Amino acid sequence: MKLELSRVVQGCRLGLLTGLGNSGQHSLEVPGCLLYTRCATVPHLTQDTLHTLRDLPSVTQVSVDSLAEHLEVLEEFKEGVRKFAGLHDTVLFCSLHDSANSSPAGHVTNKTVSVWGSGGRIELTVARFMAIQAAIQPDCYQSMADGETWQAGTSRKRVRKAVDRTLAHLDECLVLHQKTQELKWAEIFGVVEGGDILEERLRSARETAKRPVGGFVLDGFHSAAMDQDVRVQLIKAASAELPQEKPRLVLGVGRPDEVISCVEAGVDLFESFFPFQVTERGCALSFNFIIDPDPETAGSSTPTVLEFNGEMPAVKKLNSNGDENMTLYEINLKDKRYQDDFRPLVEGCSCYCCKKHMRAYVHHLLVTNELLGGVLLMLHNMAHYLGFFKALREAVTSDRLQDFKNRVLHCREGD
Amino acid sequence: MKLELSRVVQGCRLGLLTGLGNSGQHSLEVPGCLLYTRCATVPHLTQDTLHTLRDLPSVTQVSVDSLAEHLEVLEEFKEGVRKFAGLHDTVLFCSLHDSANSSPAGHVTNKTVSVWGSGGRIELTVARFMAIQAAIQPDCYQSMADGETWQAGTSRKRVRKAVDRTLAHLDECLVLHQKTQELKWAEIFGVVEGGDILEERLRSARETAKRPVGGFVLDGFHSAAMDQDVRVQLIKAASAELPQEKPRLVLGVGRPDEVISCVEAGVDLFESFFPFQVTERGCALSFNFIIDPDPETAGSSTPTVLEFNGEMPAVKKLNSNGDENMTLYEINLKDKRYQDDFRPLVEGCSCYCCKKHMRAYVHHLLVTNELLGGVLLMLHNMAHYLGFFKALREAVTSDRLQDFKNRVLHCREGD
Repeated sequence: MKLELSRVVQGCRLGLLTGLGNSGQHSLEVPGCLLYTRCATVPHLTQDTLHTLRDLPSVTQVSVDSLAEHLEVLEEFKEGVRKFAGLHDTVLFCSLHDSANSSPAGHVTNKTVSVWGSGGRIELTVARFMAIQAAIQPDCYQSMADGETWQAGTSRKRVRKAVDRTLAHLDECLVLHQKTQELKWAEIFGVVEGGDILEERLRSARETAKRPVGGFVLDGFHSAAMDQDVRVQLIKAASAELPQEKPRLVLGVGRPDEVISCVEAGVDLFESFFPFQVTERGCALSFNFIIDPDPETAGSSTPTVLEFNGEMPAVKKLNSNGDENMTLYEINLKDKRYQDDFRPLVEGCSCYCCKKHMRAYVHHLLVTNELLGGVLLMLHNMAHYLGFFKALREAVTSDRLQDFKNRVLHCREGD
Repeated sequence: MKLELSRVVQGCRLGLLTGLGNSGQHSLEVPGCLLYTRCATVPHLTQDTLHTLRDLPSVTQVSVDSLAEHLEVLEEFKEGVRKFAGLHDTVLFCSLHDSANSSPAGHVTNKTVSVWGSGGRIELTVARFMAIQAAIQPDCYQSMADGETWQAGTSRKRVRKAVDRTLAHLDECLVLHQKTQELKWAEIFGVVEGGDILEERLRSARETAKRPVGGFVLDGFHSAAMDQDVRVQLIKAASAELPQEKPRLVLGVGRPDEVISCVEAGVDLFESFFPFQVTERGCALSFNFIIDPDPETAGSSTPTVLEFNGEMPAVKKLNSNGDENMTLYEINLKDKRYQDDFRPLVEGCSCYCCKKHMRAYVHHLLVTNELLGGVLLMLHNMAHYLGFFKALREAVTSDRLQDFKNRVLHCREGD
C-alpha cells in the first residue's frame, strides 16, 4: 500500500492510494471515504442494487463489533468475511467499532477492550482480537486501541494511560500479525489516541509512526467528542508527526463541514456512516456541492460537477422536524410538505431513486413504514455523499477549494 | 380481457388471460398469481431488484387500504398509481384489503365498508370508493363488497344481507364506472360472497354473473375462514354458476396445498401475499415442487422442472420455532442450526439470493436484524412461489397433476 500525493493545497492532500488488496490491483483516490457496512452489507442494499451507484469506493469497511460473536462460524468457514458475505471484488478494511452506534464507556482494562454485538458486550484480549482478524481476513485493519478518552474532562493521567495501552496493544498485534498465515497480505493501521491533550496526541502520533504500520487511524475525534476548532488544531499537529506517504483515516467524522475541515488538517480517509444515519431518520441529503463552472476552466470540468443541480432548501431550522440529530445538509422526507411534491429528491441527481421516484412517493413509503423507503433513501444518500467527495477532489484539482467550501457551507449562513 | 382455456384436467383450468392493460398487449397464464405489493411496491425490493426474478406476473396488485388516505395527493397528481410509484409497464389490479393483514370486523353498514390505513379506519361509500379508483387508475378492480361473513356461525340472515349489499354495491359501482373518464379502459371484477352457506354462494355467483363484469373475485375463503373441504365444495358449486371464459380470483388463499385444492375447484388466480408472510417471520420457502421427469415425456419437459433440486427438510413439526403461523413449506432461517450451514437456501434454486449467499450468512443477517436479510428472503420466496405456479401449470400440461400433488403434499405425510 502506498499513497502517491499529486498535490497539497491549503493542507488538503490530493492523491492516490495504490497497491491495495492482496494482489495489489486496487486503488483509492483521496480525500475519499470507505464504503460503510454492517455485517458486511451496506444497510438496505443488495450487492446488485449497490452497484447501480457510480464511483463506489474500492475499500469496504467492516467492524469487529458486528462480527465478533460469529467467530466460531467464520473459523469453521475458513474463507473470510468477503466470501462469507458474498461481496464483490473489494478491499476489506476492519475497524473496531461501528461509528453509527455509540458504545457504553467504562469497560476498558489494561489488557482488554470491549465491543457490543447483538448479544451484548464482548471482551477482547489482543489474542482474541487477532483471532477474529484471522477469521475475517481483511486486507487492512486497525490495531486494538483504548479509545475511551473522548469525554470532556478526562484526566491527563487517563489520557496518558490510553496512549500507553494503545501502543502496547499495537506492539502485541504486530507480533501476532507476523505469525498469522491468514494475515500475511494484510496491513495494520496504528491508532493515534490522546484525547484533547496536544502533548499526548503528539506522543501517540510520533510513537505509532515508528512502528511498521501501513497507515494511521485518528481516533477520538468524532462529532460528539470535541469542538471543530480543537479537532482541527489537534489533527494538524498530529499529522505533522506522521509520514507523508501513509494514509490517515479519521473515525466518527461524517458531516460535510467537518469532513472539509479535517481534509484541510491533513486527513485522507473517512468512513461513510453519515449517509446511513441520514437514511435512518427518514432524511435525504440535499446540500449543494456543485460550484459554478469557472469560465476559464469550464472546458476541462468533469461532467459530475456540471450535470448536478442540487437544491438547497430555504431557511431551515435544526430540529424543526423533531429529530435532534438532523443536520442542515438534509431534508426530512417524512414532513407533510413533501406529500404532494412531485419532484425527485434532488433535481439533476442521477441516482436510481431520483431518476425513478418522486418525493411524494418516498414520503408515502416512509409514513406507511414501507421497507422500500429505506432502500431508496440509502441509494440516494450514498450517491450524494460519494458525489460530494468526488466534487471535493475536483475542487482541489482545479484550485477552487474556497468556492467549494462557500457552496457547501452556504446553508449554514441561513440561505 | 378474455380467458382462453387450453385444457381442463381434474377441474384445473389451464389457459391464457389475454387482452390485459389499456392497450390490451399483456397476458397472464392461469393458474397463476398476481404480484403482491404494499403501497405499490413489493416489500423490500426496488423495481430493478424485483426484475432479477424470471417469469414475473404481468399483473400487479395494489389495495385500497394502503392508498385511500392518499387520495388527495393522487388526485392532484392525476396520472395514477402506476406512474406515482414508478412502476414498470404492468397491468394493475386493485383490491379492497391487503390479504396479509387482518382487519377488525363490525364496521360494515348498509351504505359503507371500512378499510384500515396507517392512520386508522377509513369509511368508504361507493362514491368515495369510486373516487379512489379514479385516482388509482387501475386496469381492473374488485367492486366494493361486504366481506364480513367469514366468522364461523355467522347467521343466515347476516350472510344474506352481505350478498344483497355486495350486489347493490356492484350495481352502483357499474353506474359510476360508466361515467368515469379515468376508468374507461378498466374492468370491474364482481365479488362473490355468501360465507359458508351454499345457497347464498350460488345466489351470489348467479346474480353477479348476470352483470357486465370482466371477472370474479371469490371472497371469504381465506385460510382462517373455513376448512379446506368446505371451501372446495363451495368454490366448486359457485364456479359452476360462473361463465367459463371469465377469470376467477380467490382472495386470502396462499398456502401451496390450499392453492392446489382451489385450482382443482376451478380457481384461476391467486394473490401472492404468502411469500411475503413467510419472509416476515424470517423463513425461506423450501418445499419441493419438482416432479421426476417421466421417461416417456422427458424430452419435452421444460428446463425449470429439470434444473431444480429442492430440498425437503426431514420430519418437521409445526410451531417448532415458536412462530405459530409457520407452515410445513418453509424453514426458519433464524434457527441456530443454520448458523454454520454453508449451503444456499435451496440447492439448485436460481434466484439471486441462492446464487450469491449461504444460509449461514442469511441467518447472520436475520439474528442481527440487518435489513438485507428481508431483501434476500423476499427475493428467494417470490422466486420459489412463482416457480411453484409455473411447475403447477407444467404438471397440468403434461397430465402429471397427481405426481405434482404427491410431491408438494409429501411433507405433510411426515417425510
